[in-house]
Amino acid sequence: MKIIIDAMGGDNAPEEIVKGAVQAHRTLGYEIILVGREADVRRCLTAEGTESLPGIEIHNAGDVIDMNDDPTLAIRRKKDSSMVVALNLLKDGGGDAVVSAGSTGALLTGATLIVRRIKGVRRAALAPALPNLGAGALLIDCGANAECTPEQLLQFAYMGDLYARRMLKIERPRVALLNNGTEEHKGASLQQEAYQLLKQADLQFVGNVEASTVLFGDVDVIVTDGFSGNILLKSIEGTAKFLLKNIKTVLTTGLKNKIAALMVKNDIGALKKMMDPNEIGGTALLGISKPVIKAHGSSEASAIVNAVRQAAEFAESGFIQTITENIDHMRVDGAEE
Amino acid sequence: MKIIIDAMGGDNAPEEIVKGAVQAHRTLGYEIILVGREADVRRCLTAEGTESLPGIEIHNAGDVIDMNDDPTLAIRRKKDSSMVVALNLLKDGGGDAVVSAGSTGALLTGATLIVRRIKGVRRAALAPALPNLGAGALLIDCGANAECTPEQLLQFAYMGDLYARRMLKIERPRVALLNNGTEEHKGASLQQEAYQLLKQADLQFVGNVEASTVLFGDVDVIVTDGFSGNILLKSIEGTAKFLLKNIKTVLTTGLKNKIAALMVKNDIGALKKMMDPNEIGGTALLGISKPVIKAHGSSEASAIVNAVRQAAEFAESGFIQTITENIDHMRVDGAEE
Repeated sequence: MKIIIDAMGGDNAPEEIVKGAVQAHRTLGYEIILVGREADVRRCLTAEGTESLPGIEIHNAGDVIDMNDDPTLAIRRKKDSSMVVALNLLKDGGGDAVVSAGSTGALLTGATLIVRRIKGVRRAALAPALPNLGAGALLIDCGANAECTPEQLLQFAYMGDLYARRMLKIERPRVALLNNGTEEHKGASLQQEAYQLLKQADLQFVGNVEASTVLFGDVDVIVTDGFSGNILLKSIEGTAKFLLKNIKTVLTTGLKNKIAALMVKNDIGALKKMMDPNEIGGTALLGISKPVIKAHGSSEASAIVNAVRQAAEFAESGFIQTITENIDHMRVDGAEE
Repeated sequence: MKIIIDAMGGDNAPEEIVKGAVQAHRTLGYEIILVGREADVRRCLTAEGTESLPGIEIHNAGDVIDMNDDPTLAIRRKKDSSMVVALNLLKDGGGDAVVSAGSTGALLTGATLIVRRIKGVRRAALAPALPNLGAGALLIDCGANAECTPEQLLQFAYMGDLYARRMLKIERPRVALLNNGTEEHKGASLQQEAYQLLKQADLQFVGNVEASTVLFGDVDVIVTDGFSGNILLKSIEGTAKFLLKNIKTVLTTGLKNKIAALMVKNDIGALKKMMDPNEIGGTALLGISKPVIKAHGSSEASAIVNAVRQAAEFAESGFIQTITENIDHMRVDGAEE
């Protein structure tokens, strides 16, 4: 297994990315290709004491795509950027998967334009797992596609179902449509039409799910357009951060509370970890013809290790092959492109 | 000030509604009209020891709209329901405001069809205040309109701005558009077009806001369509509930944690209260030509007291008159209805 890592993508690049890559190599044993400015990457490797480790290779790329770049323009023009070079390596068979903590929009555009979608898949989607005290609830799409068609939501449902089976090891995923109420007629026309498609699909469709209950373990796959998915994901992140910040204030105010804080510190820490996007690791770009994993922009080394593990598992899962073989069942006659 | 209360609406009707009405009358001094099945209402009043309290009047209505009713059909057909009777009373000048904890969809439909919108307002909106450690951040719309036009979002922004000034006492509200990123080009076409209208509006428009930061006090009015607003509001509710449930588990596991729990109990209780929809009280239906306040479906007596207080303040705020006088500035030439 050979994992291609965009060494220059993310808030903590290249230091934490390279550190994570070295840790992943040491603990998981995979071969790693680090793509980025050679001098920078080599400096980081030296800092990790591994300048010439066999199994870690540097592939030079002189440019970097940053968060201010327009995704489409950046992919088209920055041919020598670490992200574009990494994706071309994947396309040409130079490795089994790409991991990047760089711009989500650019990675999605790059994966679509360079690696390409699975034939018949209308849109690639981002599908992170939300914490739910169980195996997690897969949210698809969470931001790749602001505007979606009912057919695209149907495809997201099938991809989410398969991903939950293969990667989250859920035997018979309960697939739900994110909506503003549980009744069948709820939502805008997108949700109303998608509901009818999902009802007839070969899935365990359990109907609409409201945003208030997604974390409570009643559903395994949450299907939605990328705009609403982004709102859901980010408000969970923000609310958790807001509450934990307030709890921290409570636990550091006054001697009595400080003593109490010492007593529950480890347990509150575990909760914080559960809600931390860094711990979730990576998010697969579902629908792309080869494995591309988006790591969180704020990834530190541990998140990169998780993303590398996830990339390898995804490559071995047979997900892409199964979708490719079954795409005809995921189409709606006469649907717009 | 005379407040009309739908005694039969909500999960805890009529007991908690009547109890709240009595408390509101006693503590705030307003006259109250309780609309509902006379025998039921009278039984509840007796339980409160106030069968013949001057200032509390019963107006009989034999029918009830429940959560399973289709909103439009229910308003059209259940002419003798407590909600329809209450709204007709308001329309005919029998009171100054309506408070209902019944079906949101039915109340909105009823307010629109019976009381009617302010002339020129395209859609009425629900605008609850989110907790943000300050005066609160007004979310408009949060579920009334699943599909919106850019002009409607512009009107929501103006109404939200005025409501924040008059009701939340924020001198110069910072108005933001909910989006999946902070950059100007973000979102679907709705957000992109609304952004351009908001940029030119006579408002302190501070650009896009992401769902992850809405609680942190940087914005005062969050403008969005009702579908996304519903996702945002409910995921904040759900995440807070999920986390507080987990914290409770932490604090009741093991002797050490139980002792710690006793020490921080009051402070954690205050946090829980801050995130509790019951404490927020009511949400005004902005854009309706007379004051209609939606109380949370799970309202207990204390939430009804808050909603009654809010109804009276809203009636006295001059909000409706100001919107009526300035509606010409809130229109977009050639916009679809």
